[in-house]
Amino acid sequence: MFRHGPCPLHTQGKESWVKAAVFAEPHHIEVHDVPMPQIVKPGDAIIRVIKACVCGSDLWWFRGIGQRQHGSLTGHEAIGIIEEVGPDVRTLKPGDFVIAPFTHCCGACAACRAGFESNCFNAEPGGNAGYQAEYMRAYSADTALVKVPADPKELSEDTIASLLTVADVMCTGFHAAKCANIRPGSTAVVFGDGGVGLCGVLSAKLQGAERIIAMSRHEDRQRVARAFGATDIVPERGDEAVAKVMDMTDGVGADCVLECVGTAQSTLSALAVARPGGTIGRVGVPHIDSIDVNNLFWRNVTLSGGPASVTPYANGENGLVAKIINGDIQPGRIFTANFDLDHVQDAYEAMDERRAIKSMLSIGA
Amino acid sequence: MFRHGPCPLHTQGKESWVKAAVFAEPHHIEVHDVPMPQIVKPGDAIIRVIKACVCGSDLWWFRGIGQRQHGSLTGHEAIGIIEEVGPDVRTLKPGDFVIAPFTHCCGACAACRAGFESNCFNAEPGGNAGYQAEYMRAYSADTALVKVPADPKELSEDTIASLLTVADVMCTGFHAAKCANIRPGSTAVVFGDGGVGLCGVLSAKLQGAERIIAMSRHEDRQRVARAFGATDIVPERGDEAVAKVMDMTDGVGADCVLECVGTAQSTLSALAVARPGGTIGRVGVPHIDSIDVNNLFWRNVTLSGGPASVTPYANGENGLVAKIINGDIQPGRIFTANFDLDHVQDAYEAMDERRAIKSMLSIGA
Repeated sequence: MFRHGPCPLHTQGKESWVKAAVFAEPHHIEVHDVPMPQIVKPGDAIIRVIKACVCGSDLWWFRGIGQRQHGSLTGHEAIGIIEEVGPDVRTLKPGDFVIAPFTHCCGACAACRAGFESNCFNAEPGGNAGYQAEYMRAYSADTALVKVPADPKELSEDTIASLLTVADVMCTGFHAAKCANIRPGSTAVVFGDGGVGLCGVLSAKLQGAERIIAMSRHEDRQRVARAFGATDIVPERGDEAVAKVMDMTDGVGADCVLECVGTAQSTLSALAVARPGGTIGRVGVPHIDSIDVNNLFWRNVTLSGGPASVTPYANGENGLVAKIINGDIQPGRIFTANFDLDHVQDAYEAMDERRAIKSMLSIGA
Repeated sequence: MFRHGPCPLHTQGKESWVKAAVFAEPHHIEVHDVPMPQIVKPGDAIIRVIKACVCGSDLWWFRGIGQRQHGSLTGHEAIGIIEEVGPDVRTLKPGDFVIAPFTHCCGACAACRAGFESNCFNAEPGGNAGYQAEYMRAYSADTALVKVPADPKELSEDTIASLLTVADVMCTGFHAAKCANIRPGSTAVVFGDGGVGLCGVLSAKLQGAERIIAMSRHEDRQRVARAFGATDIVPERGDEAVAKVMDMTDGVGADCVLECVGTAQSTLSALAVARPGGTIGRVGVPHIDSIDVNNLFWRNVTLSGGPASVTPYANGENGLVAKIINGDIQPGRIFTANFDLDHVQDAYEAMDERRAIKSMLSIGA
């Protein structure tokens, strides 16, 4: 399912070539030799990728439901070692161990200053991609990358896996919980038992939720959900799921609802189980066009969420990186399958067919 | 425009009669003699009304846009003196000065405990009404009414007017600001220059907003907006208003948007001027069925709001009642016309025709 040799779409007369995953067509990812990424702007960094992974949101275009350009480089989550930096990079140097987030943070615009780097006004068009590769380019490296204060050679594979989740999935689950306004003692319901939903469970626990109801019908995911702090598991879906949660909450509904799927059914169910004055934090890529906002209004239900930020959640003394290094959390448990880059097609298929919760790609060392 | 004598719709063989405003048909409110309200439940109180007023939300049915039952008693904002209490009332006694909120707070259900008393699970069906009257009945008096620690005879007319706003309009504006997530230094935009919108301006200021852009095209309202803390006035509407606000905020949009109208135009404009990661607090009765939730998602914009609560905002050392008694705020400035109960029709017309920002009814002493 992969092919070596210079890719006709990426040939630009460069001398050195590296392997990278490339989208061919729905259900079909290839590995091509593409030009070694170069420093383009003075704030850029080139990263030698150690690990990358497949995102649940990639399945939309892998399945042909969402659109993606033929020949485009794939992947938006990675960790690796800085290989080279541009002349303006101040805080990073070759050899540094970094997380490459799916987001871009210029650190200066109104969105980044407010902590919403997914909405960075200075992001390059098209969104970040090309992380499922031997080498990748990151821009605004100083502010956009997350430096890990550790030598990857001294960290366990489990810790490395957990750090990789910070590139997107764990921060996305954390954003869902933040947006859902979790408070100490809250009752939270989490829709979605993929990597993001499970990280949502872990984040709800971290943010103080007392009761966490995980909507999950797959035994492997239920196990991780319980390990991450779920107190209740509800396997039902749709109206049955809503009835069950309402029954479990004495007809009141939940304080906080994390919507980590994005389908119409999941979104409508999430709206239905929020208590009066409750909050829905949604991070699932939305596949619903409109909702009955009058119903939300009369119930005083808040609808929040969107693409997550990484650096505000990852950095700092109490940030996710510190918690992982300290062994407080192990979000890397969501990786239940591991592939080399040549088998990236298998990595996608394992998630598409629900054989893996989330597929890791082990690329370098 | 009013008529005395027992109302055929409210005659129940009672001996004593009191005057009350009654909805006849769109654009037509009458004053009827209705039976003196009675203690029905052991937690009830009967209130002798000193002041009541007309709500902007009343204009929807006054204009025939919203539905209202012929013959129903009107009004949901009042202050007055406790005349009688039921056997279970513990904290109030005849002679106490109280604010009668438009909301009901049982104090015990999940919604009330969470501070969302508009969604009280134990509210009587149909919503509170009948406050534009000489006497009114309140239920769950201990928790639902706001006791004012002062003798109304020793308060100025201005202070009395300000206390009356706590029954709804000031708390509704305060709720808009709360839901819009005002933080110290925030930039806020307030849509709506009626009583609620102006109280929203005052509340944004109270909650720490640094820049407050009031959308207002009426000179009398602009004056009050400036007195309440507005730093900028934008008279445009629709696309022009959006363009103006985006220009004023360097293309970023506002941190916090208070939607105090409810029309489709106002709501869509409010959504459009929120910055990435911004929040819309809406309290205008919604006259829009659905919105593009994908757009909200990709911009990380939070949609919050609904009917306000009163007691959580009114009570306590730093509550609105204390601030009014201390002279810190004068929300009563929104009353620009005053009528006796017999002229309730004029009170509605003055608001309907925008001759008054908000009409007060002076009923008792």
